[in-house]
Amino acid sequence: MHPDLAFEVWSGERQRRSEDVLDRALTFPDDTSAALVDAMRYAVLGGGKRVRPLLAYAAGELAGADPAAVDGPAAAVEMVHAYSLVHDDLPCMDNDVLRRGKPTCHVAFGETMALLAGDALQAHAFAALVRGGHRDPGDACALLAQAAGAAGMAGGQAIDLAHVGVAMTLPALEQMHRMKTGALIRAAVRLGAACGRPFAPDETAALDAFALAAGLAFQVVDDVLDVEGSAATLGKTAGKDAAQNKPTYVTLLGLADAKRRAEALRNDAHAALAPFGAGARRLHEIADWIAQRSH
Amino acid sequence: MHPDLAFEVWSGERQRRSEDVLDRALTFPDDTSAALVDAMRYAVLGGGKRVRPLLAYAAGELAGADPAAVDGPAAAVEMVHAYSLVHDDLPCMDNDVLRRGKPTCHVAFGETMALLAGDALQAHAFAALVRGGHRDPGDACALLAQAAGAAGMAGGQAIDLAHVGVAMTLPALEQMHRMKTGALIRAAVRLGAACGRPFAPDETAALDAFALAAGLAFQVVDDVLDVEGSAATLGKTAGKDAAQNKPTYVTLLGLADAKRRAEALRNDAHAALAPFGAGARRLHEIADWIAQRSH
Repeated sequence: MHPDLAFEVWSGERQRRSEDVLDRALTFPDDTSAALVDAMRYAVLGGGKRVRPLLAYAAGELAGADPAAVDGPAAAVEMVHAYSLVHDDLPCMDNDVLRRGKPTCHVAFGETMALLAGDALQAHAFAALVRGGHRDPGDACALLAQAAGAAGMAGGQAIDLAHVGVAMTLPALEQMHRMKTGALIRAAVRLGAACGRPFAPDETAALDAFALAAGLAFQVVDDVLDVEGSAATLGKTAGKDAAQNKPTYVTLLGLADAKRRAEALRNDAHAALAPFGAGARRLHEIADWIAQRSH
Repeated sequence: MHPDLAFEVWSGERQRRSEDVLDRALTFPDDTSAALVDAMRYAVLGGGKRVRPLLAYAAGELAGADPAAVDGPAAAVEMVHAYSLVHDDLPCMDNDVLRRGKPTCHVAFGETMALLAGDALQAHAFAALVRGGHRDPGDACALLAQAAGAAGMAGGQAIDLAHVGVAMTLPALEQMHRMKTGALIRAAVRLGAACGRPFAPDETAALDAFALAAGLAFQVVDDVLDVEGSAATLGKTAGKDAAQNKPTYVTLLGLADAKRRAEALRNDAHAALAPFGAGARRLHEIADWIAQRSH
C-alpha cells in the first residue's frame, strides 16, 4: 500500500491516524469524571512521536494487515507508554515538571488525578487492544501484560530506580533498558505483525531481534540527547540523568562511544530485517529515524 | 459439585484455591526485580476476604464451569482490587498506614515501589485473566478493562476524591459506589459466569442486578463498620471516612437507616437470583455473608 510514499508522508499519515484512534479510545460517556478524562486525554493526545504506534503499523504492513486492524494494538501500546510517563513524572518517581513541551500531568491536574489517570489509561489500553484485528485476542492480552509488567516495563523501572547513584555495568544497563523500554517496543512490533499473516518462528525471532536493536538504539540516542539537547528541542527537561545521578550509556561509554553504539545498534536493526526484503521498508525507515532523531 | 458443603467449608476451599492461584500468578523468573515482586506479593497474598474471587467461583458454579476454568478470572479481579488498594493508600490519595492488619504497601516498601507494584499488578491481572477458561478472551479483557477504567473503578475513585468535604446526594453516592466498587464486583460475577454455559440476556441481567445489589450492600456495611468497628477487627484504620470528611451512607442516612438499607439491598440481591433456583445457592450465601460480616 503506497510503497512510494516518502517516510515523512507515511509516518505523518500514521501519526494522524493514531491521534484519531486515541481520541476515540479516550472518549467517554458524559457522566464520566470530567477531571479524570481531561487528565487522561492531556497525557496522551496532541504530542509524542508515536514511535510505538508507527512500529505496530509498519509491522502490520509487513504482515499484509490492513491499517484498520492495527489501530487497536497501536493505540494500546501508546496508552501504556503514556501512562508510564505520567507515573514516571510523579514526585515520588522522577518528580519532573515538563513533558512533550507542556507541564507534566500532575503539575496540570494534581498528583491524585495523575495517579488515577495513569491507572485508567493502563486499563483502557487493554480495552483498545482487543478492539483490534489481532488474530488471537487472548495472546495479544498476555503479550501486552507481560511487556508492561514485572518482567517488562514496570520491572525495568524498579531496577532503574534502585540504581540512582549506584554503579551499573553495561550489560546490566542494557538488561534494564530491554525491560523498561524494549519489552513494550517488542510488543508493538509483535502485536502489529500478528494482525496480518502468520509468521514462521524464525521470522518472529527476526522481528524480535529488530525490536531489541531498535529499542536499545532509541535509548542510547535518548541518553545522548539528554546531554546534548535543550528543553526547547526535547520538550522535556534536559540533563536530568546527570542531575539524578542515573547510569546512562553516556556516563558508561562517554559521548563518542555512545554515538558509535547507537550506530552499531541501528546496523543491527537493519541486519535483523534481512529475511523480509523490501516488505520491511517502513521498519528500516523507522530504525533510521530513531537513530537520527534530534528530539 | 459438593452441593451439601456448608458455606464456611465451600468458601474456605475457594479462598485457599485463590491463594494458590495468586501465588502462582505472582511467581516470576529469578532475574525479576526482587523488591518489586516482594511488594506485589505483599499486597496480594496472605490476607483479604477474597469477596471477588468467591463471586467469580460461585457464578462459574451456577454456569456449570469447572473451578479450574474460573481460576484465571478469579485471580484477575482480585489483583485489580489489590492494586487499587495499594494506590488508594498512597500519601497522595488516602494516606493510610494500615491494611489487612499490616502496614500498607508504601509503608513497608516505600512510595515508589508501591506505585510500581500497583501498576504491575494491574498488568498481570490481564495476564491471569486470559489464562482462564473464559469462552471469549477478547470479551473478558474488554469487560475487565471497562470495570477498572474511567467509567468504572478509577472513575469512581476520581468522583470520591472530588467529594471530600463536599455534600453528596444519596443517588450521587450510589452512582459513585456503582463505579468504584460495583463495576469490579459485576465483572467478577460476569467473568466467572462466562466460564460456563452461555446465559440468556435476561439471565445476564439478573446476574447484573444481583451484583449491583450485593456490591452496594458491601459498601453500606463498609460504611457502618467504619463507624462501629475498630482497627483490630477491621484490619484497617477505623473511622477514616469521618476523619477525611467523606460522604457515606451513615453520614447521609444515619446509622439505623444505613443498616436498614443494607438489609434491603441484601433482599434485592436474593430476589435478583430468583430465575436460577437452587443453582445460585453460593451466590445467595455470599449475599448473606456480605451483609452480616463484621470486618
